Amino acid sequence: MGLNILLDNLVAALSRLPGIGRRTAERMAYMLVEDQRGLKRLLANALLEADEGIVCCERCGAITMASENPCRICTGHREEAQVLCVVEASSDILKIESSGGFKGRYHALMGRLSPIQGVGAADLRVESLLERLQPEGITEVLLALGTDVESEATAHYLAELLEPRGIRLSRMASGLPSGSAIEYTDAATLAKAIEGRRSFS
Amino acid sequence: MGLNILLDNLVAALSRLPGIGRRTAERMAYMLVEDQRGLKRLLANALLEADEGIVCCERCGAITMASENPCRICTGHREEAQVLCVVEASSDILKIESSGGFKGRYHALMGRLSPIQGVGAADLRVESLLERLQPEGITEVLLALGTDVESEATAHYLAELLEPRGIRLSRMASGLPSGSAIEYTDAATLAKAIEGRRSFS
Repeated sequence: MGLNILLDNLVAALSRLPGIGRRTAERMAYMLVEDQRGLKRLLANALLEADEGIVCCERCGAITMASENPCRICTGHREEAQVLCVVEASSDILKIESSGGFKGRYHALMGRLSPIQGVGAADLRVESLLERLQPEGITEVLLALGTDVESEATAHYLAELLEPRGIRLSRMASGLPSGSAIEYTDAATLAKAIEGRRSFS
Repeated sequence: MGLNILLDNLVAALSRLPGIGRRTAERMAYMLVEDQRGLKRLLANALLEADEGIVCCERCGAITMASENPCRICTGHREEAQVLCVVEASSDILKIESSGGFKGRYHALMGRLSPIQGVGAADLRVESLLERLQPEGITEVLLALGTDVESEATAHYLAELLEPRGIRLSRMASGLPSGSAIEYTDAATLAKAIEGRRSFS
């Protein structure tokens, strides 16, 4: 293969990384090509090892080792195993798990409804969510989705599917982020925080 | 290997790309791990193919194919083959070559003097530069280096080596960039442009 094809392939692959445009990818490609310290092989090996060793849990979608599938969260003891937390991405599970605030199990949709990007219900892990409910004795589903329009639409779609099945639905509380000041908080967040106010005890 | 080692290796390798900090590398790693469309293998293959197929020319340092080394610029006919353009990086050669303004040969130093980063003369391709002068009949060296302190120091260091050998030294002109307006030009550039003024003909 010619020089230009090899360079173009590298630039094209780098451009697909999140937040990397064509110009940045070109700069990365030149840096990689000029690098004499084996960075190309280092990165290639890390990618191939990740490709072989890391998978998304077949049950909940969390990032796990290929040798631990279903993952530890799915197979281990959980204090509130009857509560299922539905998130958009695998990485959301890591984030919530490391907060220590949730004791149940998870289910990653791997996306959200987005007509503009052509993502419909069939592209999300909705079927496998419904199939888990009865066998795992799920009584509550916590919708831990984002707060923009597409995530809200996804939440409403799931609510319509889940409510007829007698599942208790809950969602993340909306309000002031920890450590924030009233002065710097936007109007929509303030309105949500007032609407959801709780007794001071 | 455990999940964390695989993830850490991937984050560490991505962090070494130019302009990529730890947080961005983590975001890239999660996106790569969650990706189901084979992006990890695509990128790994592009890297490995570049690693095998692309090299820096053993003579001038330009990016070339492993099967064309020395490169076409070094082995082909050049109108002003006795002029050697010294640059800092391989990619500078591509940049100057595509400007169409230079008809001689090139030599990439692969860096510049930087005591702070521990880069000394022995780390640059200075020895191979000196060895090329006589065999190739070089009469003029054009120092096409940057204009900041480290590049200036590198230019002065090379000048001290080259002048005693009877080589005519030249440097890139300093002045207004093409298409710029006086109004938006900084003081240092204006001073350089006035200092280097030429007769209007």
